[in-house]
Amino acid sequence: MRVLVPLAPGAEELEAVTLIDLFRRAGFTVVVAGLEPGPVTCSRGTVIVPDQPLDELAGQSFDLIVLPGGLPGADHLRDDPRVQALLRGQADAGRLVAAICAAPKALASAGILGGRRATAYPGALDESGLQPTGAAVEIDGDIVTGRGPGVAMDFALTLIERLGGKALRERVEAPLLR
Amino acid sequence: MRVLVPLAPGAEELEAVTLIDLFRRAGFTVVVAGLEPGPVTCSRGTVIVPDQPLDELAGQSFDLIVLPGGLPGADHLRDDPRVQALLRGQADAGRLVAAICAAPKALASAGILGGRRATAYPGALDESGLQPTGAAVEIDGDIVTGRGPGVAMDFALTLIERLGGKALRERVEAPLLR
Repeated sequence: MRVLVPLAPGAEELEAVTLIDLFRRAGFTVVVAGLEPGPVTCSRGTVIVPDQPLDELAGQSFDLIVLPGGLPGADHLRDDPRVQALLRGQADAGRLVAAICAAPKALASAGILGGRRATAYPGALDESGLQPTGAAVEIDGDIVTGRGPGVAMDFALTLIERLGGKALRERVEAPLLR
Repeated sequence: MRVLVPLAPGAEELEAVTLIDLFRRAGFTVVVAGLEPGPVTCSRGTVIVPDQPLDELAGQSFDLIVLPGGLPGADHLRDDPRVQALLRGQADAGRLVAAICAAPKALASAGILGGRRATAYPGALDESGLQPTGAAVEIDGDIVTGRGPGVAMDFALTLIERLGGKALRERVEAPLLR
C-alpha cells in the first residue's frame, strides 16, 4: 500500500507523526510530501524534514491520501491548488481520502464532502456550511475523517484496517500496548 | 517550566512528538536536544530537526528530563555518558525524571531505578534485572515511567499534571477531544 501525507507549515505534528508511524508499522510505503522544498515547522514548533517536495510526485499514485490537521496547516492544504487537484483526482478515481481535525475543511473546499457524513474539529467546517457529526472517526464510502488529536491513533488504525484488513490492524495495535 | 527531551537516532517519533506537542500546549518551554548536531532519523523514518545539540546545554537546568523510547534510540540514551550524567544530576537534585517504552533502561543504567516501582515495554528492563510493573504509567517519587506508544498521551498528561497541576492537565486534555 502507498500512502501520501502532504505536510504543510503549521500541521499538527502529533497527528502527522502518529499517522506516519503507524502506517510504517503496518508495512505501508509512506511518502511525506512538503508543500515546498525543505523542512516544515509544525503547529507546536516541531521541525520535520519531508521525504520529498509535493512538486516531485509526478507519476506516483497512492492508495490513500491523508491530511493531518492543525492550524494554519489545514488552511494551507485548503488553499493549495496542487493539493486540491490531488484530492479531487483521488476521489474521482474512487480511491481513499482521509483528513483529521481541522483538515476536513480541505476536503470540503475540494468539493468531495457534499452529501457525506464527516467529522472534524468543532468549527473547522463552519466556512463550508457542512455539519460535522462529532463522531471520533467517520467512514462514508471512500472518505474517512477524524475529530482531533486525541483520536489520531484510532483514526490511523481505522485506515490501516480499511487498507489491510482487521488482522493487520490487530498486528499493529497489539504492540502499542494501549 | 522547562523540559528537556534528548532525541537519539532511532527514537520512537510518536512518543517524542506527543510529549513535545502536549508540553508546548501546556505552555512549558521544551528543548529538544539531539545527541549529535543535525537532523535525527527516528525509528520509523521520520526526520526531526532538534532545537539544539546536547553539547550546547551547558548552564541550563530543567524541571523535567523525559526520554522517548524506541529502539535503537533507548540503547543510545543508555550508552551516552552525557545523557547518563544528566539523568544522575537530575535525580540527585530531586528533580523529575521520566522515560517511556524502552527508555526506562536508560534510567536503570544510570542507577536511579533501584528500589523504585517502574513500568516499561516488556523486555526493556531484562538486562538490568529489574521487574517492570506492567502498569500504563507509574509514578514513584520523582521517577515517572510509561509502558509504550499507546499510552504516550496519558504519560504526557500525567507529567503535565505533576508539573502544573490538575487544572492545567484538564486545559490541555479537553481540546484533544479524546
